[in-house]
Amino acid sequence: MGHTYLTPDHHKKRVEKLTTKLEEQDIESFLIFNSKNIFYLTGLSFIPTERPIILILHKGEVNFFVPSLEIDHVEHQVPFASQIFSYFEYPDERHPMYHLAAILKNEVKLAPTRVASEALGAPRYWGYKGPTLEEVTGLKFTLLPDIIMDMRVIKEPEEIELMRESAKWADRAHKYLQEYTEVGANEIDVTIRASTQGSQDMVSELGDDYHPTGFSIFPAIALYRGQIGPNSYFPHALSRGITFKKGDTLVTGASSDVYGFQSELERTMFMDEPNKRQRNLFDAMLAAQDAAMHAAGPGVYCSDVDKAARQAFRDKGVIQLVRHHTGHGLGMEGHERPFLDLGSEDILEPGMIFSCEPGIYEKSLGGFRHSDTFVVTEDGIEVLTKYPRNLNSLIIDA
Amino acid sequence: MGHTYLTPDHHKKRVEKLTTKLEEQDIESFLIFNSKNIFYLTGLSFIPTERPIILILHKGEVNFFVPSLEIDHVEHQVPFASQIFSYFEYPDERHPMYHLAAILKNEVKLAPTRVASEALGAPRYWGYKGPTLEEVTGLKFTLLPDIIMDMRVIKEPEEIELMRESAKWADRAHKYLQEYTEVGANEIDVTIRASTQGSQDMVSELGDDYHPTGFSIFPAIALYRGQIGPNSYFPHALSRGITFKKGDTLVTGASSDVYGFQSELERTMFMDEPNKRQRNLFDAMLAAQDAAMHAAGPGVYCSDVDKAARQAFRDKGVIQLVRHHTGHGLGMEGHERPFLDLGSEDILEPGMIFSCEPGIYEKSLGGFRHSDTFVVTEDGIEVLTKYPRNLNSLIIDA
Repeated sequence: MGHTYLTPDHHKKRVEKLTTKLEEQDIESFLIFNSKNIFYLTGLSFIPTERPIILILHKGEVNFFVPSLEIDHVEHQVPFASQIFSYFEYPDERHPMYHLAAILKNEVKLAPTRVASEALGAPRYWGYKGPTLEEVTGLKFTLLPDIIMDMRVIKEPEEIELMRESAKWADRAHKYLQEYTEVGANEIDVTIRASTQGSQDMVSELGDDYHPTGFSIFPAIALYRGQIGPNSYFPHALSRGITFKKGDTLVTGASSDVYGFQSELERTMFMDEPNKRQRNLFDAMLAAQDAAMHAAGPGVYCSDVDKAARQAFRDKGVIQLVRHHTGHGLGMEGHERPFLDLGSEDILEPGMIFSCEPGIYEKSLGGFRHSDTFVVTEDGIEVLTKYPRNLNSLIIDA
Repeated sequence: MGHTYLTPDHHKKRVEKLTTKLEEQDIESFLIFNSKNIFYLTGLSFIPTERPIILILHKGEVNFFVPSLEIDHVEHQVPFASQIFSYFEYPDERHPMYHLAAILKNEVKLAPTRVASEALGAPRYWGYKGPTLEEVTGLKFTLLPDIIMDMRVIKEPEEIELMRESAKWADRAHKYLQEYTEVGANEIDVTIRASTQGSQDMVSELGDDYHPTGFSIFPAIALYRGQIGPNSYFPHALSRGITFKKGDTLVTGASSDVYGFQSELERTMFMDEPNKRQRNLFDAMLAAQDAAMHAAGPGVYCSDVDKAARQAFRDKGVIQLVRHHTGHGLGMEGHERPFLDLGSEDILEPGMIFSCEPGIYEKSLGGFRHSDTFVVTEDGIEVLTKYPRNLNSLIIDA
């Protein structure tokens, strides 16, 4: 494999691993509805809609139940699929779930007592409605909503490579974002220009190693989403077309999609030399991020990483400006379990990947938050995002 | 109001309308979890994460239960909010749902027999796990998962204006997409260039009437997502960085976000003069779209619109190439109920908005599908997307 994609052989090993886990629970057949989990197990990337797409893992074999418009898509993307069952359309004259029930009984021939499912039925995307699996089959399915996510929490070495590559292009796109940011420019223009240039670099430099999964328009992205000047005070602001002004505190974001893996990079920057208060809050934020990274490592409680960041904020006298915990797991989704949070009972293990982003927010001045992506190693952590974190690197001449 | 946004007064009327509907069912308090429904009722746009955001509609008053990082965001965006309750963070030492239960009991003072909810508990976004409402409150909530969606299905005149505006900018972005498409260009480059130019036009021409909600990076977008040449055969293909070649059949997509409303425009185009088979399939597709539009109108069954398109395909001898139904409702989500589908029992009513997109797909040659957005009027339909549909307008010199 390259650093930028996974092969069908890799997916087959994951299927084997899941099959073994299911056998340990005496489960012979498992129904999977979550689109990310289906991608994780098979490499099938698709747009989730109201039309259910179901992976039927039966005695270790991968079978699909899909709408007719996806049949060839599956054949094309999953060379090791055993059988592809299909229904014409949703809602159709006969609801797809009744069609599924007939297939499970007559074609797959489920052993009635050894069946499990991720959910009670298909997810209610985009207007979908339907009966539960139990209603259409009369069978009692063991619910295993977390079994695949539990696998996904510990990243394989190949996944860490994907994330490393994602961090590289997030860094690159962010370089353009910083370069294009200037007084009078509009956040949307700068976002589009930086993401365009970052994506072009990524596609052209990766060449044949570029394997888009189609999840993002921009393979690499660097953006503002409204956290500009006083508005940066809102930790989850949304883009509003703000124009940059001298004195603004800025909070950015950057990522790139490498075979579905998305790193997280965020920086606090200043339009012109920061004033004393901006400088103090920046320093406090940096101290908290340092403290969290220092605390993190294998065998450490997630809650202790959060405590370390909070202690740093307390030492700097700004604990009252904290609005959220220190970080979250990530990988194929924006946030994933576990969380670097006081209330978490999880322990960091090698292979887990987290954002580290303690933040503080002062009304009318703005937000102060860096976010970096790190992986837990055998003896510590490795930070994958390499963009400069120090104040002097993050001041824009204005 | 303008054509590009809704005012708090408009949202307040929706809240009143919902309150009346609830009172008819003797419901005094209703808990809302769906982010689109919360936006619909209050204008609060936010990024859904693992941190629950809950609208507590109580005796007609709008109260929120939000994580601390969203408090000011709500104050800023929802001037008519009565009370904003908050919890610090998820998962936190005390799970937010227990915090909610205490607030519902002690602050809101729910009448135990007159409570309803959209769902059993908060949605499982991004690693969220939690107890149900019943588990934390001991109360039995009436489940009303569809009451707001039922309101959303019939668009208000102001919403139709938003969609009209959205269609206008989708048309504009698509013009650039067609203009930039040429032999040897890459689909991703053309997508980014067209969306950039379309968005710049939209932002600059709308000026102060531009009210972004932050849901999209590109206010206007026109894209390829891999439906190029033989690959256009896959109805739901995903972007893969394909280069345009002479002879290709292309299927495009375009939209724009106007206060959360997103129209749908798709066109089949050809790189150079189409051959006889391409021409025949294009003609069949156009005939089916004409037939569907001709059939549609108030009082007509959704299934009859689908039947009309199918009959046209049958008349042209290509019914075996059909892979999906004729269209779907849309508005604030990509697809919404009802569906223009053989199995639908719904009837078209004035104010409903649909895509009209009968398609046919021939292996190794490609896909043939236009999509237009229409609104049902008192005496027929009005097509909101105005981009040319005829063959001669859609041939690119190669």
